[in-house]
This record gives sequence, C-alpha cells and structure tokens, in this order.
Amino acid sequence: MSENSIPGGFRFAGLHCGIKPEQPDLALIVPDSPCVAAGVYTQNLVRAACIDWNRKITPTDGLRGIVVNSGNANACTGEQGAIDNRMMAGTLARQLSQPESEVSAEQILVLSTGVIGRPMPMAAVRQGIVAASRQLGDRGDDFFAASTAILTTDHRRKTVQKHGFAGSTPFAIAAMAKGAGMIGPAMATMIAIVTTDFPLNPAQADAALREAVAQSFNRISVEGHTSTNDACLLLAPHFPERGVSTAGQRELFQQVLNAATLELARMIPADGEGATHLIQIDVTGSENDEGADRIARTIALSNLVKTAVAGADPNWGRIVSAAGYAGVPFHIGETSLKVNGHLLFAAGEPVPFHPAEVSGAIREPFDTLIELQVGRGPGKAVHYTSDLTADYVRLNADYTT
Amino acid sequence: MSENSIPGGFRFAGLHCGIKPEQPDLALIVPDSPCVAAGVYTQNLVRAACIDWNRKITPTDGLRGIVVNSGNANACTGEQGAIDNRMMAGTLARQLSQPESEVSAEQILVLSTGVIGRPMPMAAVRQGIVAASRQLGDRGDDFFAASTAILTTDHRRKTVQKHGFAGSTPFAIAAMAKGAGMIGPAMATMIAIVTTDFPLNPAQADAALREAVAQSFNRISVEGHTSTNDACLLLAPHFPERGVSTAGQRELFQQVLNAATLELARMIPADGEGATHLIQIDVTGSENDEGADRIARTIALSNLVKTAVAGADPNWGRIVSAAGYAGVPFHIGETSLKVNGHLLFAAGEPVPFHPAEVSGAIREPFDTLIELQVGRGPGKAVHYTSDLTADYVRLNADYTT
Repeated sequence: MSENSIPGGFRFAGLHCGIKPEQPDLALIVPDSPCVAAGVYTQNLVRAACIDWNRKITPTDGLRGIVVNSGNANACTGEQGAIDNRMMAGTLARQLSQPESEVSAEQILVLSTGVIGRPMPMAAVRQGIVAASRQLGDRGDDFFAASTAILTTDHRRKTVQKHGFAGSTPFAIAAMAKGAGMIGPAMATMIAIVTTDFPLNPAQADAALREAVAQSFNRISVEGHTSTNDACLLLAPHFPERGVSTAGQRELFQQVLNAATLELARMIPADGEGATHLIQIDVTGSENDEGADRIARTIALSNLVKTAVAGADPNWGRIVSAAGYAGVPFHIGETSLKVNGHLLFAAGEPVPFHPAEVSGAIREPFDTLIELQVGRGPGKAVHYTSDLTADYVRLNADYTT
Repeated sequence: MSENSIPGGFRFAGLHCGIKPEQPDLALIVPDSPCVAAGVYTQNLVRAACIDWNRKITPTDGLRGIVVNSGNANACTGEQGAIDNRMMAGTLARQLSQPESEVSAEQILVLSTGVIGRPMPMAAVRQGIVAASRQLGDRGDDFFAASTAILTTDHRRKTVQKHGFAGSTPFAIAAMAKGAGMIGPAMATMIAIVTTDFPLNPAQADAALREAVAQSFNRISVEGHTSTNDACLLLAPHFPERGVSTAGQRELFQQVLNAATLELARMIPADGEGATHLIQIDVTGSENDEGADRIARTIALSNLVKTAVAGADPNWGRIVSAAGYAGVPFHIGETSLKVNGHLLFAAGEPVPFHPAEVSGAIREPFDTLIELQVGRGPGKAVHYTSDLTADYVRLNADYTT
C-alpha cells in the first residue's frame, strides 16, 4: 500500500492561519457524507472547551466535520473559551452547508492543542477555517497537510496507514496523532484521529475505539502529566452498498485497528520531548493483568529509571525498587529482570554482569526493552515511555508564557 | 541553645571505614543505658535487609545501639545481605557487651543507605564498627560526625536541635537526616534519627513518631521514587528519676517533635538533587484533608510543574491541569492560584499579569510558594518538593554502576 492510499470517503486540509508564528496550525477533516464518529477523552477534571463540546456529540452517526487547531489549547479559558469553541464549529458548519443540506454546529467536532489559558485568536481562526474548507482534498498530500497542522512540540509527523480484509472485503485505516509532552496514561491521551472505510454503527465504533485505545494510547507516557485536551476519535462512514458487517468481520477490523493505534501510540513517547530512547516495559508473572499494568506504569513514571536509561546505566536497582512501590504484591525471590536481553537480576539476587557491555547495549539502540518477571502468575502488561534527558528539562523550563 | 547542646544520654561517632572511596560512611549512636526506640519504615515491597531486621525490633525499650552505613544500601542482596546485616548488629553488640551486661544483636538497629544490589564490604565495615565504638562521645562534634557519615548525594548535613518545656521540666531534641534523591512520599522516607531526653515508653514513642512523620517526612518528595531503605527512628531514654510523663507534657513534647521533624524534612527537598528551588504547595478548600493531600502530591510529582519552576515560568496551566488529574473532585469555577503571592488564576479564569514580573518573583528566591484554592471546603494540605533541573538528570544519568 503506497503512502498515498487513504480510506475513501474523507477530505483533509491543513494550513497556517496565524495561531503560531509560522507553522501550520489548522486542520480540517470532512467526510463526504454524514459519518459515524466515536471519541474517548481526557479524564482530567480540568478540561478544554472542546472536550466538553465533543463529549456531548459522540458517539454519533451524523458527523459532518472536524476542526483541529494547534498552538492554543483553549483550556482554562472560562466562558469565552466555550463561546470561541462553538464559533469554530459554527464557522465550519456554515462553510459546509448547502441549500439542500444545512449543517449544524452540533455536527462538528473541535480539537485544540497548545498553550493553556490564552484566548483563541478568533479572527485568524475563522479566516483559517474558511480558507481551509476551500482546500479540502482526498489525496495523500491533503491527509499529510492535516497531520502536520495538528503538531505542537512534536519533531515528527505521526501517521499510520493500514489495510486489511474482512472476509473478501478490503478495508483501509488511516490515522494521525500528535503529542510529545504532557503525555500521561489516563484513558485517552493527546490527539489522535483514525479514519476508516469499514462500516460501523456508533455503538460499534465506540466499542472498537475503546478497545483499541486501552491497548495503545492508554499504554504510553512521557512524563505522566494528563493533558486537559486529550482526545482520540474514530471516524467510520456507512457505505449502504456494503451493508452491515458481521461479528467476524468486525473482529478482523479490530485486529487491524489495534495494530494501527498501537503503532501510532508508540510514535508519541518515541518522539517524547528530549527523548533519546523509547523504553518498552514488559511485566509478566503477576497475579493478574491489572497488577502487571500498575507495576509497568510505576516503572514508566520513575524519573530515576528514565534518567538511568538516558545515561545507559544498567541500574536494575531502580527498576526493581520502582516495582516495589507500585502497591502490588509480588515475591522478590521469584523476580527476574532483563534489560535489552541481558539478565541482571534473577530469583531475587543480582546476577554478575559486565557493566560496560550492558551499558553499551543500552546506549546504542534507540529502543530499550525492560523485561520484568515478578512471579509465575498469568498477569502481564506492556507500557511505553520516553527516557528523561537534560533536554526534556530545558524544553520544559523554557516553553511558554 | 548552642549548636553543641544535644540531649543527654547518647553517644555518637562517625568515620570513614572504606565503603565509599574517601568520605565518612559509618556512624554509631549508642544510648548510655537501654532506651526506648520506635521506627517507621519504607512501604516499598522491595526492602533492604536492615528494614526487615529493624521491623522485628521496634518499638522496644531495650535498644543498645544503632549502626548506620552510607554508600551501600544492602538492598536486593538476598540471603547474604541478611547475613551481613546480622553480622553488623552482632559486631556492635560485642563491642558494647560487658562482663556484667551482655548485649545481644537483637538490641541493635541497622540502617544502610547507598547503592542497591552490591555486597557489603564486610571486612571494612567490621573494622569500622570496632574503631567507631572506641570514638563514641556525647559532644556536639560527635553528633555532627555521625550526621555527616550518614550522607550520600546530599550537599549539606541535615540536623535540627530543639528544646522545650513540659511544664517546668526542660527537654531537648536532636535529630539528623539524610536524603536528596529517591525521595517519595510513602510512609517514612530516607533515614532520620531523632534523639530526645523526654521520657517515653515504647507505645508512646511509636505514636509520637507516627504523628510527627505524617506531617513532615510524609509530606516531601524529590522525584517520588520510594526507596528500599527509608527509615525514621525516635530514641527516648527513660530517666527513672523523672518518672512518667503526663498527657499534657507529652502534647507539649509532640509540638516540639513535630516542629523538629518538619524542619528536618524540608531540608531534604531543599537539598534535592540538582534543585534550584524548594517548592511548597499549599492546597486549601477541598472537601477534606485527604483530597487536598492528593492534589498537593500530584502537583508535587508533575515534572512539568517542577521544570516550570526551574525555568521561573509562571505556567499556571500546568499547576491547574495537574490538580485536575489528581482524581479528586473540585470546582474549576471556584479555583484560584497564587504563585509567590501573585494571583494568576481566579474563579476558573486566567488573571492578566506581567509575565516578566512574575517570572522574576519566581527566579530570585530559593523558596517557591504555590497556593491553590480549589473550593470552599475545610480540607487543606501542604507538600514540599524540589524543582527539576538539567542537573538532576545529569546526576541521575551518571550516578552508579
């Protein structure tokens, strides 16, 4: 499948409207006809205006478009923030309305990301929505323009394209995400938008998205700070000629969706602010998956583990001790640890190893694999995070106000 | 009270025995006669040998001595670690034994701090215990030698001396602590030893210590990583001539003990690895103290908040959004925030302010005061933490193995 093959049924645009000084900062995603949309959103009690707006709309089978802006989160902006958010939806609705087919603001989702607490520069945003709605296209280039305009501190565009077969029927998935900082493992992180041509009703889309997010975006972190603006959307048009999918077809779709969201999710800590390593933490042997998940997250959030990886230090004591304060019972005498394949701790005791050799094995590759076995139970979990470098600190000591 | 006035009834020693390359690494604290000792210990499931040992002993009224070593945590060292720990206790017990008064290993507490997972260099440690037991003294200089020998990455010795009156009876408290990294807000952190001449039985000492720790060492963090070796001890001899204290006297003692432990606890994040600011987080207005505590801790553990303070960035959005994911209900419309006295957010909306002015007010002083009001409830809590600097990362990317 070429880079330019994206699911039919959607048009995209991305441009610079003036929220940021120079870079692209406004994207539109518009289905050819009213489509199904499901969403999962930040669990943060302090939420952006767009989150409250979107929550009332999804899941739906009548979505007409999405406005995404970067550079301004429109969070902690009070009443004016809610008014501005509605105006963004209304502006796109008017652009999409036709005499025979009125589009209402309530059929438009809004996603904002960027600095918290600044008023949205609405004159620029309105002009940007109007201009972008005239540039909508269904080519790969349009998809990439949109996926570029949603970025903030990201270094790299984050997109995934997959296709699969449900029986003999081909389907496609194209997904974009943004996120490099303020990434915390609550239900839904950052912004991600998944489009597909696989037919789903709103309840099916909602269930499929929740399963996909639980094993992807909900398994990543950069520094564990849950954002005010996190949202992940799944858009799926109905093609009447294809009829309704079977449970077996949906399972095949779910597999591809899971693979797509996991691939996209991993790109976020891999592009984590200042990151020099993507750390994968595999925990096995706990009593249940929930326990393994808590241990994996606790390790992922330990600054001491993250700095050790940044320094290529095979400091297994920090990893084992982080597991110890996760609040999950396990037996230290049955605990073993490997880092990038090197056994450092086995059955509760240190294993002699050559520090320079293991340090080299951590320093060189971008990917660091931490495998912690905490017993013989069936529980397991995976978590992905960034290492913590002096550059992370510099970026975040200097970013904004 | 002069620097040299410490409670009577204890002798101290500190010296270099060879666990570290050069610095003092072994301390002894020995009561003149069997004394009361209470302890609180790390909640980490992965515990050093000394923690398991001490837990079986405290509270007690028969303590004969404490061995403290720095440079080696004797944690994750398996069976050999437990054997070495018992040998440390036994060595001091033999030194203190006299023909008419045998001291058993079970009357000796052991505290270890330093690198995890290394065998203890027992030849050096045994010689050190013997040598130190011949240097024991009750002067201020002896107290300071001991308080220096317990340090690891600390830049500064951490001691507090207080005195008070319980009725007309004077009492004194002298306390020492170590800790600059791997400081997480579980029950009991780092190593702290409090000595007093106020008479307490073991149950009273235990209750007094738990109350003191809850409002001091349990309110601090550096990066939130709970250590394998945390322990806080309170030693209180019985002076038969003074009889048993009254409840009123114990309350007066508790006030001074609380003040001493809080002062000592604040020294830890103030000396946090790489720290350029001590951050005090006051949360008020939540439904109850527990909720305020969770919000304060969540803010304290946010790398984005900690880097913002390091960069003197009045980035209130990070503080308010961290409160939002603490898992505690509050009303954003009743939420206000001050940083070093500057009102930045009031009743759920940003307050216009002069960024350069507020930035200057954060950059200059070492102390940063974050005051977050989240409603009109009676709940309140205070937490102390360090800022997060590139130096913290450098120190922890380079420290050990």
